[in-house]
Parts: sequence; structure tokens; C-alpha cells
Amino acid sequence: MLKKVGEHTIKFTMPPKIINGYAIVGPKEGESPLAKYFDYILKNDTFNEKSYELAERKMLEQAIFGATDKANMLSTDIDILLSGDLLNQIISSSFSARQLQTSFIGLFGACSTMTESLAVGACLIDGEFADTVACATSSHFSTAERQFRYPLELGCQRPPTSQWTVTGAGCSILSREGKGHNITHATFGKVIDFGINDMNNMGAAMAPAAADTLCNLFKDTGTSAQDYDLIVTGDLGKLGSELLIDLMEHHGYKLGNNYCDCGQMMFSSSQNTFMGGSGCGCSASVINSYILAKLDSGEYKKVILMSTGALLSTTSSQQGETIPGIAHAIVVEKGK
Amino acid sequence: MLKKVGEHTIKFTMPPKIINGYAIVGPKEGESPLAKYFDYILKNDTFNEKSYELAERKMLEQAIFGATDKANMLSTDIDILLSGDLLNQIISSSFSARQLQTSFIGLFGACSTMTESLAVGACLIDGEFADTVACATSSHFSTAERQFRYPLELGCQRPPTSQWTVTGAGCSILSREGKGHNITHATFGKVIDFGINDMNNMGAAMAPAAADTLCNLFKDTGTSAQDYDLIVTGDLGKLGSELLIDLMEHHGYKLGNNYCDCGQMMFSSSQNTFMGGSGCGCSASVINSYILAKLDSGEYKKVILMSTGALLSTTSSQQGETIPGIAHAIVVEKGK
Repeated sequence: MLKKVGEHTIKFTMPPKIINGYAIVGPKEGESPLAKYFDYILKNDTFNEKSYELAERKMLEQAIFGATDKANMLSTDIDILLSGDLLNQIISSSFSARQLQTSFIGLFGACSTMTESLAVGACLIDGEFADTVACATSSHFSTAERQFRYPLELGCQRPPTSQWTVTGAGCSILSREGKGHNITHATFGKVIDFGINDMNNMGAAMAPAAADTLCNLFKDTGTSAQDYDLIVTGDLGKLGSELLIDLMEHHGYKLGNNYCDCGQMMFSSSQNTFMGGSGCGCSASVINSYILAKLDSGEYKKVILMSTGALLSTTSSQQGETIPGIAHAIVVEKGK
Repeated sequence: MLKKVGEHTIKFTMPPKIINGYAIVGPKEGESPLAKYFDYILKNDTFNEKSYELAERKMLEQAIFGATDKANMLSTDIDILLSGDLLNQIISSSFSARQLQTSFIGLFGACSTMTESLAVGACLIDGEFADTVACATSSHFSTAERQFRYPLELGCQRPPTSQWTVTGAGCSILSREGKGHNITHATFGKVIDFGINDMNNMGAAMAPAAADTLCNLFKDTGTSAQDYDLIVTGDLGKLGSELLIDLMEHHGYKLGNNYCDCGQMMFSSSQNTFMGGSGCGCSASVINSYILAKLDSGEYKKVILMSTGALLSTTSSQQGETIPGIAHAIVVEKGK
């Protein structure tokens, strides 16, 4: 019998546990209201490397090795690394995996990668294909800007709907055994495109996919927003979050004060990031620090984590394409 | 108890079945020795679209819908689509997924994507998270050349170690039930880098990863080359295949006449592709046509399929990096 409830949601029979997380962020993110929760804050955004790409890779490697360290494991205890990032051909992940003598499954879900990797990783553990997996992702403001937008040196003005790609990386260790928080459900998202074509308005492009996944999760599990202590999206930002609230209301679900967005939580309004943070590293660093800490303390008992991704490339945008979105959700319950 | 044998190899308890495959290729590939096995051969390499990227996407969509058609299914019968490709941010896959109302897991394994998707898909079915999944990938000579190398208009001379990116796409439908060939084992590969930095010598960059995965599979299952009717790699090409044979011999395994490479099989020597075919679409189109046909006919009873990927980007190469490789293997046995 399938381990599913409803049409789209997986229900794990032996919920895999998030036994540990590690979050590392850049200097600007180190001034975030969440700063005290991060494991490591860079003093400079090149992390003493020659290029931003090398800095991003070094952050991701530190997140992976940091998480295994915190779990009192060696990297050889990891059966499979699941990782992806925003850079072309996910070079941050592939080159980081080179440092590990472990199997590697490369993923791409743009900024949805953190929950994509957690959902696939949970399947591998509940399906009894692995004892321990590492789920990791990263982003860097300067690698993303030069790849997706303009050279930083050009000093382009940022439009008011834009978000700020978070410099950061996060890694979660999932395990069958041990003490940790339980992943009870996972809903893999569909690709949804409402026709947004503005690369500086990612929140609007991703909100319909987030609404679709969240509605499916609610419907499949027979729950609604009040059944959770926290529902957190990846990086919809201020505008995208408002759109999600509207879309959910349209579907008959009211998101209340227990809804928030990692992109909005990451920066204070004085940090001039307009709509807030974005990038794979945004939800990766918030989930693996603040949210795990609140689960540890018991303030949260049941949460929905849903990273959101905008599936565009510069080629697709230059060829006049719109921006499809995707969102993958998991339900996490505080472990005993 | 883990569904594993040895350290790295998954052994499926209820082997997921490849119930169908669909292969579509470009006009040059239509002159291949394997031509009669392909489901569809393009008359022109733009597939009557305005750009090569749109042509690649249309091929991938046709592969996915073609495979579901051949399986007498509707696309809504697919629980999850697993797909990835070579283009930045895997736009061929993401935009194809937009056409399906089904969950999507985006993967990136460069040219290893066909067996990566089959291995992850088999885990999702054997783990009882899905009844039916589609595993698909694509590549296009002209989208790959302009993204990874030089504009075609420049007419650059191709070095003798180079391979020719296959214009093609393939899709396999995996299912728990029905008539098909059984995926009995899967070995997820490690990222291995022997220091090759020549973007025109991908075979050499990937061969060490292929050797590592194949040795692990042999060791874990207690088998060697003579236990299989066919061992096929993705796109090592002529040089990479010779290196693999040497490396395997060094590890005590002799690959005989039952070893071949999709890249070498795809083109005849008169087609001037030097070392042979490459690209995600290479193993995708050969596996989903010729190899499934030989399993159907009973000529092959037990095969190893191992697509191979070179995990580089133009950014990593321009920054002086070497080329890491990866290879994921599955064992397929003829169904009854």
C-alpha cells in the first residue's frame, strides 16, 4: 500500500529525523534579526577566497562538515549527499561533493532546493535505502547577481519589487535513528506558471506554486493553517507572501499570524532589501538555525516548511519566456 | 533493515519495472546505426521552432507524452516526473514539467541524468511513495555548443578528443505493476576528479567516476563483468571507454565484448563525431530504444546501465577548475 494520504502527499511510516542543522551566512545576513541563531557569520563576503564562486562553495562545504560535526559524525557516516544550488550546473554542490567520499544525488529546484532535498532524503530513509543523508544548499548574493542579472560593478538600481539573494548555506542531517525532529509528511510540488515575466518580481512568480502545494497538503492531510504552530515559505518576500495569503483565502484557507516567510524574516526593514531575502541559502539558513532552535525549545511543535523556487534562466528570460514556479513542502513535528 | 548489499548498492525488494520507453532524436542521429530503433526522428534540428532551446524542450515533451501514450496511460497517471538536462537551471525539464499536472523533482547530474532519474525513481516506487513515475532527459547539439563552447556561427574546429552532443530525448515509465523489465539494483555514484581540465576531453574526465561506481557495484553484489549480457556506459566515447577498460583491469575486473558505450554506439565512424556522442540525450535515447528492444527480444537478460556525467560549468572552467565526474548505475533484468 502506498505511503500516501490524498493525491499528492507522502506520509512517512517511520518518520525520518532531522538530527541536526548547520547555518552559515554572509556579513549582511550577520546583521539580521536572526543573527544569534546562525552557526557562523562570515567576516567578509569572499570568505578569503579569490572569487565569489569559491566563497559560496567554501560556505557549502562548511555547512556540510559543520552539520556532521555537530551530529558527532564523520562525513563518511553520511550515506548520500543531496544537494543543489542556483549556479549553472550546480557547481557549488558538485564541487563540494568532491570533498566527500559519499554517494551524491544532484538536485535542481532553484530556491526550493532545501525542502526538495529534505523531502527526497526523507523518502530515501523511510524507504530503507539509507541510514543517514545530508541535505544541503547554498547561495551567494554576488554569484547570483552576476549570473542572473548585471555585473555588480555596473551599480544598477534595484527595482522596488526586487529581493536580495542571501549569502548563506545550510545543511540538515537526516537519520533513521537518534534524537531529532520528525518529518511526517512531504508534498512534492507541481510546476505552475501564472505568466509573470519580470525577473525582479520572483515572489509573484512563485506564489501560485506555493498556494498549489499548500492547498494540496491541507486537502490531503485534512488540516488547515490553525493545525500548525508555524507555516513558513522559502523566499516569497513581502509581495509574494501577500499574494500567497490572498490566493489561499481564495481557496478557503486563512493564513494567520502563524504564517511567515524566510525571506521576510532574514532582513530587518532598515537593511534596504526591499521585498526581503531570496536564494537557496535563504530558507536553508533560516530552517537550519532559527526554526530548528524553536523546535528544540518546544515553542513550535508542528511546522510546515515550504521552500519556493523560480525556475528561470537568463536564456529563458532573454527568449521572452515567463517564470514558472515550484514549491515543495514537508511537515516537521517536534521530536521527543 | 536497509535494502542494501555491500556499502553503496541498493537492492530493491519489489523491483520496479521499466514498462516503457520513448526515444526521439535529431536528423544526424537519424542516420545512426541504431536509427531503426528510435520512435521519432526529427526532419530538421529546430523541430520547426524558433530557437534550439524550444526545439529541445519540444523533444523532451514529446518523449514524456510519447512514453505515457505507449504505456496506454494519460499524463495524469504519472505520480512524479523526474527530469533534468544540461541547460542552465535545467530549463528544458522545468518548462516541460509545466505541461504536466504532476509533481516534479528536478535533478542535475549532467549526462548521468538518465540513470540518476531511473535510480531515484526506482527508490520512490520500491519505497512505496509512488505507483508510476516518468524519468526523462534531453540534450541538443546546438543548445549545448552555444552554452558550453562557442557560437556555431564561429565554425570552430573540433579537437580530436571531442565528442558530439546528441540531439535527442528519452523517457522511461517506471511502475510497480504491469509488464516490464526489473530494476534490481542501483548504485549512486561519488564525485571523482582526476584533474582533467580539457572541456574537449570529457570522456577522460568521467572515466574514473565510471570505474569507481562499477567497481562498487561489482564488489557489493559479488558479481563481475561476465555475469551480465551487457554493461553500457552513457557517453564516455572511444577514449573514455578505453580508459575505463584500463582502470577496471587495474582493479582486477576485465571488461570484455559485453561492454559498450552509448556514445560509441550512437554514431558510425563515417559520421565524423570523433570520440562519439555525448549529452544527456545520448544514453537517454539509446537506453529507451535499442537496449529496451534487446531486453524485449530476450537477447539481453541482465544488463548494467550507467550514464556518466561531467560536472563542469563554463564558470568553473574559466576559473581554472578541473572537471569532476559522476556515474550512477542500475541493474536491469528482463521481465517475464
